[in-house]
Amino acid sequence: MSIRYISQKLALQIDEELMSSSGAFSLDQLMELAGLSCAQALAKSYPASSHRRVMVACGPGNQGGDGLVAARHLHMFRYKPTIYLPKPGSKDIYQRLLRQCENLNIPVLKDVNEFKKGLGESDVILDAIFGFSFHPPLRAPFHTVLSAITSTSLPIVSVDIPSGWSVTDGPQPLYTESDENGKTESVETFVPEVLVSLTVPKEGVRGFKGRHWLGGRFVPDDLAEKFELNLPEYEGVDQVVELPRIVE
Amino acid sequence: MSIRYISQKLALQIDEELMSSSGAFSLDQLMELAGLSCAQALAKSYPASSHRRVMVACGPGNQGGDGLVAARHLHMFRYKPTIYLPKPGSKDIYQRLLRQCENLNIPVLKDVNEFKKGLGESDVILDAIFGFSFHPPLRAPFHTVLSAITSTSLPIVSVDIPSGWSVTDGPQPLYTESDENGKTESVETFVPEVLVSLTVPKEGVRGFKGRHWLGGRFVPDDLAEKFELNLPEYEGVDQVVELPRIVE
Repeated sequence: MSIRYISQKLALQIDEELMSSSGAFSLDQLMELAGLSCAQALAKSYPASSHRRVMVACGPGNQGGDGLVAARHLHMFRYKPTIYLPKPGSKDIYQRLLRQCENLNIPVLKDVNEFKKGLGESDVILDAIFGFSFHPPLRAPFHTVLSAITSTSLPIVSVDIPSGWSVTDGPQPLYTESDENGKTESVETFVPEVLVSLTVPKEGVRGFKGRHWLGGRFVPDDLAEKFELNLPEYEGVDQVVELPRIVE
Repeated sequence: MSIRYISQKLALQIDEELMSSSGAFSLDQLMELAGLSCAQALAKSYPASSHRRVMVACGPGNQGGDGLVAARHLHMFRYKPTIYLPKPGSKDIYQRLLRQCENLNIPVLKDVNEFKKGLGESDVILDAIFGFSFHPPLRAPFHTVLSAITSTSLPIVSVDIPSGWSVTDGPQPLYTESDENGKTESVETFVPEVLVSLTVPKEGVRGFKGRHWLGGRFVPDDLAEKFELNLPEYEGVDQVVELPRIVE
């Protein structure tokens, strides 16, 4: 039985069940374990000896929170992360996670031009911009951010769904929202070398051919059975497990 | 420079700083990482193939919370934990952590006789009863619990400070609180095979000669420097690091 690829709707439902009064997980807990999974997957894909400088691009939602947690653990794993966070989420948890990174003297960039410059001084990108709640069209400044990432030759590790991809259909033509004249702009999307799916892979990454890690070793057995997720076995004390690579 | 052994007072101060508005960590986060460290240290000391059945003895305070988190991760690591929790802490977090374990169908014992019987069906004990806030004398039912643990021949993994030891002076004569006639009872303490110190080892375990792990890979560099903790380097993506063993 191979692993299930789940819809945006089911991904949301699983998160809701985990955090419901019966699931009993807090957002703090799940984000900590998700971010740790992302940091572990990056570390298992790109050793710090050759890929020390990590640009962690964080979006405004929960995936940005995962990115902040990952940046902190990467620092602890002796990487040299830089955070790009143009639109910090308003929830208290993002403020706390950001402060934890600032306490480690991890640089935090807000300006897209600083981000572009920072890419030139990075060895690998952790793409924690959009998660499974993403709906096009794309809003500023993220069209510039995605274009900048697309035009680098750096290896990219994407969290859950490569930013800009459709959660359902994968890489699709992507446009910005229309300006005052009703005009939209086409945005080039990228294909990461590495993907970290959290909890269960989403439908949009079904055809992904790079290295694919699964993270989030906290899904209760009953929940996995109920939704027929067919999760693989993790090894040892790892928080991530590599999925078999798709052969063309 | 060897690692520092810290006082009860400094241990409390470090926890307070981590969770202060400047440290910005939540109890949920720290407990998750502490419990994960305990589960990893147990797994690195006793493989599931030979020590599958783990009795996780939890006290009423924060260390009991670490034990609940560890039990959940041990289940994920394919151990078969049983929880003994005679006096569940009243904070909401303990209720949530307990429910997460119940959702995994981990058995939870409350009665000390069930606990004693359970020890006979276990391969290893995780002692998460008392942490660095422990002050003698000992209260019921914990004198029976400690005596039961002392009288087994099972290997014991203690969290932070072996339960019953003085946080300052290590193994010391231990007594119950006096009964209505003013009488106290002497309680035999145990020496674990393995110890997991959280954040920094405490003064009382300075002479400990078993396997000694350090967990809690989240102490900010500035805080470690300020208190001259001389923390060792963790390896890879591990949440625990083994300290050099004391040779007699």
